[in-house]
Amino acid sequence: MQIEHLIIGAPAAGVVALLYAFITSGWIGRQEPGTPRMKAIGDQIARGAMAFLAAEYKVLGIFVVIVAAGLAALYGATESGSPLVGVSFVVGALCSGLAGYFGMRVATQANVRTAAAARTGLAPALRVAFRGGAVMGMSVVGLALVGFGALFFVLMNQFGVTNVDTAQVDFNKIISILAGFSMGASSIALFARVGGGIYTKAADVGADLVGKVEAGIPEDHFLNPATIADNVGDNVGDVAGMGADLFESYIGSILGAMILGAVALNGWFEAALIPLGIAAAGVVVSVLMTYTVRTKEGGNPQVALDIGAFGAAAIMLPISYAIINFALGSSGGSITLQGGKQVGTVDLMAAIVAGLAAGVAIGLITGYYCSKGKRPVNSIVEQSRTGPATNIIAGIGVGFESTALPILGIAAAIFVADHYAGLYGVALAALGMLSTTGIQLAVDAYGPISDNAGGIAEMSSLPPQVRERTDNLDAVGNTTAAIGKGFAIASAALAALSLFAAYRGLALGGKQLILTEPKVLIGLLLGGMLPFLFSSMAMKAVGDAAMDMITEVRRQFREIPVLREALTLVAKAEEEDRPLTPEEDEKVQAAGKKTEVERCVAISTQASIRRMMMPGFLALASPVVVGFWSAEALGGLLAGTLVSGVMLAIFMSNTGGAWDNAKKQVEDQKKDYNPEVNTGKGSDRHKAAVIGDTVGDPFKDTAGPSLNILIKLMTIVAVVIAPLIAG
Amino acid sequence: MQIEHLIIGAPAAGVVALLYAFITSGWIGRQEPGTPRMKAIGDQIARGAMAFLAAEYKVLGIFVVIVAAGLAALYGATESGSPLVGVSFVVGALCSGLAGYFGMRVATQANVRTAAAARTGLAPALRVAFRGGAVMGMSVVGLALVGFGALFFVLMNQFGVTNVDTAQVDFNKIISILAGFSMGASSIALFARVGGGIYTKAADVGADLVGKVEAGIPEDHFLNPATIADNVGDNVGDVAGMGADLFESYIGSILGAMILGAVALNGWFEAALIPLGIAAAGVVVSVLMTYTVRTKEGGNPQVALDIGAFGAAAIMLPISYAIINFALGSSGGSITLQGGKQVGTVDLMAAIVAGLAAGVAIGLITGYYCSKGKRPVNSIVEQSRTGPATNIIAGIGVGFESTALPILGIAAAIFVADHYAGLYGVALAALGMLSTTGIQLAVDAYGPISDNAGGIAEMSSLPPQVRERTDNLDAVGNTTAAIGKGFAIASAALAALSLFAAYRGLALGGKQLILTEPKVLIGLLLGGMLPFLFSSMAMKAVGDAAMDMITEVRRQFREIPVLREALTLVAKAEEEDRPLTPEEDEKVQAAGKKTEVERCVAISTQASIRRMMMPGFLALASPVVVGFWSAEALGGLLAGTLVSGVMLAIFMSNTGGAWDNAKKQVEDQKKDYNPEVNTGKGSDRHKAAVIGDTVGDPFKDTAGPSLNILIKLMTIVAVVIAPLIAG
Repeated sequence: MQIEHLIIGAPAAGVVALLYAFITSGWIGRQEPGTPRMKAIGDQIARGAMAFLAAEYKVLGIFVVIVAAGLAALYGATESGSPLVGVSFVVGALCSGLAGYFGMRVATQANVRTAAAARTGLAPALRVAFRGGAVMGMSVVGLALVGFGALFFVLMNQFGVTNVDTAQVDFNKIISILAGFSMGASSIALFARVGGGIYTKAADVGADLVGKVEAGIPEDHFLNPATIADNVGDNVGDVAGMGADLFESYIGSILGAMILGAVALNGWFEAALIPLGIAAAGVVVSVLMTYTVRTKEGGNPQVALDIGAFGAAAIMLPISYAIINFALGSSGGSITLQGGKQVGTVDLMAAIVAGLAAGVAIGLITGYYCSKGKRPVNSIVEQSRTGPATNIIAGIGVGFESTALPILGIAAAIFVADHYAGLYGVALAALGMLSTTGIQLAVDAYGPISDNAGGIAEMSSLPPQVRERTDNLDAVGNTTAAIGKGFAIASAALAALSLFAAYRGLALGGKQLILTEPKVLIGLLLGGMLPFLFSSMAMKAVGDAAMDMITEVRRQFREIPVLREALTLVAKAEEEDRPLTPEEDEKVQAAGKKTEVERCVAISTQASIRRMMMPGFLALASPVVVGFWSAEALGGLLAGTLVSGVMLAIFMSNTGGAWDNAKKQVEDQKKDYNPEVNTGKGSDRHKAAVIGDTVGDPFKDTAGPSLNILIKLMTIVAVVIAPLIAG
Repeated sequence: MQIEHLIIGAPAAGVVALLYAFITSGWIGRQEPGTPRMKAIGDQIARGAMAFLAAEYKVLGIFVVIVAAGLAALYGATESGSPLVGVSFVVGALCSGLAGYFGMRVATQANVRTAAAARTGLAPALRVAFRGGAVMGMSVVGLALVGFGALFFVLMNQFGVTNVDTAQVDFNKIISILAGFSMGASSIALFARVGGGIYTKAADVGADLVGKVEAGIPEDHFLNPATIADNVGDNVGDVAGMGADLFESYIGSILGAMILGAVALNGWFEAALIPLGIAAAGVVVSVLMTYTVRTKEGGNPQVALDIGAFGAAAIMLPISYAIINFALGSSGGSITLQGGKQVGTVDLMAAIVAGLAAGVAIGLITGYYCSKGKRPVNSIVEQSRTGPATNIIAGIGVGFESTALPILGIAAAIFVADHYAGLYGVALAALGMLSTTGIQLAVDAYGPISDNAGGIAEMSSLPPQVRERTDNLDAVGNTTAAIGKGFAIASAALAALSLFAAYRGLALGGKQLILTEPKVLIGLLLGGMLPFLFSSMAMKAVGDAAMDMITEVRRQFREIPVLREALTLVAKAEEEDRPLTPEEDEKVQAAGKKTEVERCVAISTQASIRRMMMPGFLALASPVVVGFWSAEALGGLLAGTLVSGVMLAIFMSNTGGAWDNAKKQVEDQKKDYNPEVNTGKGSDRHKAAVIGDTVGDPFKDTAGPSLNILIKLMTIVAVVIAPLIAG
């Protein structure tokens, strides 16, 4: 069997994943959506989420068309590039967008059905929530493999080249076309993460301020149109945003391994076989392992999730070995690195294992810094006793400190991967972490689905044991999610490094990037500054978008008479600490149908999309502007952004996570307002912890996660424009 | 006249500066120290400051001896280095330490005498305060030129070489010995800044918490031993810390220009003539310009300070031109850069002007981001309306944003300097900003002296117009101080860059630092992380040291009976809102003499010195450990630390400054507790702004200013060990 035919396995595995997603989403649709009230709330969330996607995709559609036309025009005019770059950019953006659409559609069906299933027991609720997440995971990897795999085949036919000569124009053309796909996916990811992050935090703040503080109705009440937006925001940020994020990580690491592999292995198909083969196998393993995720009533869902995610990773090791061994067969069982060193299958596997080990270690460290009861969170809880200022200082201190060990982990992974297999090893180390993205993302997306289910149970006044079950679901999976975060950070750094090396080769050819060159240093400083500027825009956007949301909710409360009346009833009952009478409840239910959720969602969407323009523009334009001035400066820019971007990303995510759990830890403690103890819900210590948590929101949900994408998007833009600025 | 003889001008100018400092400090000592009460308070502060210095220097003495012995041993064992490195390290540390001692001794005399002079009028008060600062400034530049200049002469005699051959062992030896001096000064600077920063903020927090909150006595009351420590802290951090900081910047930029100049000009004396000549002229100009700083009663002290500082800088431009022109004379009026380009006096001047322009621009930008009434501070004031969380988010957003323009300024300076005069130009750009350090530092140190004078006036119950005058003095000089800050940041970055380039040449010889090499990338990531880890240690140290201080103050309040009694009297009078009766006052005065200030100061000193060990160790050990692993990785480490260190330094200083002035702006507003307006002292908005200000304290006074030193200390350590790790 020829290697060319084996590659077809990648899109084929993608089709398997999509079939799984299709069948599973049908199964979810057939589950019981619960009481009419639950159904109404679920519908509102689903409608809101779709309204967001519709508005977002309209704007992104225009953006994609303009950029694609620009790329096609620029590339059509030069000999070194192909106008196909524009097409592949569109296909990449489209695949990523579709994956977000499918995933969010099913997640917004699964949330209410998880709540409904939780009325029966823990096991059926876990099944619905996890399968909902699995649809997201499989949509992402399925569309990635189908899109990218198909593009690769078209390219090979178009150019008819299988051997690699890095001096050939065709080599640069093929890489820039493949990179176009990745750039499309990364652009969508950046906008989805930034926009989603702004959205969810703006809705959160807006809902709380107008509903709870001004109108005096309880948190999460369905009369408040921003409450729905808040729940929509969870889906928008944590499901669609994360899906697009992992889609671009997945493609980025495959691409990095392919470009460096093409040089190392001296053949396109051989180079593609390793990343695409491992990815394809990873998809099949992920699909099979989803069936192991089940629990008995009274069982521990944590064990079920761990078996699924870690089992898949373990199974992938021997499979990866076999694939690499096969791929090296055509070059005599070993490849020759740039320095002349011969490396074999075991060396390449060492690189993959180094990446995996670093990812797991970083995940555990991240978990440690953000977990209740551990030293870092304990120190924040302790310092919260003397007020918000010490809470903030302690949190920032913890966050700064938390960058140290993950960076050592990344450095160790680079060292080992390079030692065994050079820069190609670094690319493989990134790839190894992402081979089981399918099931990893299923576990990640399961979290917000369970969270939403809990909210729906609360809003629908279901019996307390239902909420207990959804809380139980929500509480586990944290370890797996933390490791997912570790994978995201480590793989972003490693994938960016390998793409960075690819950029150097494409843009500078035989010339090296010399660190003491003033242009490189200028680029380095400017690049180091960009993540700070980007984060400042994201944080400012949250504040501004929240103001827009507040204005709209106030307007609805003022201008819709039945709503105003219902609000008064609820606030009164709340004040008198009694449930609504059946008569009142009927009125309130009727008024709930009058809230203009779509309008509220649309306004918040517009605000968040408007506010995501500038950071997005910064990410896309900076490498282009700097690159057309000097290819060396662009090299420095990428390195600078990588360094300060990774630091800020770790800092912001961990600080936010630690503040969040410090607040929860104070809430867990028994109320005691004695000044010596001063703890529990409502205490001054709690108030201080709540302030830290609020500061942490835009840290961990808006700016932090966007920085990983910023780093890679800038690098991929550089790779795409490299042929244009070379020489 | 031979060039060798001209160089003697540098130590000679240093002697002039020291003579000025000696005469002026005598003059200050002869001024009227005011009422017995003022004198007592002034004595307490002076005793406290000396107690701190004594404790600090004891510890630093041990440290200096150990490191010097280590350097001498390491270097004695190799052919490429000289054990003289250890000696020059000691001399550098000693000169920096002496400058700190002189400056602080006089500053703690000048504060009380400024308050006394302010009873007569503004003009005499300005004279005392400014001359107090000038002693600090002239001690710093005087000792720097005498020490460094003398060392240079000894070296030239010792080795008998005047021509430079970079391949010669002698070249590396001379550089590492000169760098040893700079390393000594930088080590003292780091400890002085970190220790001083921890000290001043710990005393601040401790004094407030125990005195104001627990005992109920007014802020800054002399019965509180931590209040004196607080005032001591201002001297320790803002006078001694800043002096040591500028001492090491001054030497660092001279050294950078000498090393790169030795290569460019191919002669040690020619290379030394430019930086030492400019520095010597700058000292003489600074001394002369101090006599122009005077104001009439009712005049604006701002104008006087501006004339002094800007006038000196303007006069230095033609003088620098003449010196450079003369130095280039021996090589035919131009020098040949590495690429083969010929550059003349005008090109070198262009580089100097680029540095000056960038420094001024960055200073103005820094001023803009931290000033009352400007957009950034206004936005924090606006966001404080909704509480501490939005105050913090807005402040961090402003701080992140504030990195952008200064980095563009630094990038532009590098671009211009490199364009006209290559890397040597970058070194000259750093040098140009620091030629008038003498008068610049006089203006900087004048601030805390006026501030202290205000505190003494308050504590001694002087008439309100006295406090008004000292406030008037304190309020001006902000622009000059902001520009000083701009100079500090820009010159740190540029000097670090030129030393970085020197390191590359020494450690790698003909080999280049290639940015895509995995070892360089590992270094880059680790280096990027160090400023975060360092800042986390500094911030945690403030918290811990404050706790030690609190414990000690509580003990004194509990265990000294007359003090306990006096505290009750004051607290009672305070509660009844009446002055003390003469009888009570007598008791309180007597009790004030019983406070164990030295003990309190010593304990806080020990705590801050203990806590500064780890960050100091981190800064010194990291380059050594990484360098002995790989010289390439150390190159990456320096670049990474430079990038993230500069960003964090700008971010932390500006965020802290903006929060500080946002609080002051709220306090300036008329009290209005109406929820719609919610402003003025005591309002919820004010409480939120106070929290931001407290968070900003360790940002702007502990971690932020130390980062500039961290960057340069690590680079200079790398230069010192370069001959040992080369090859």
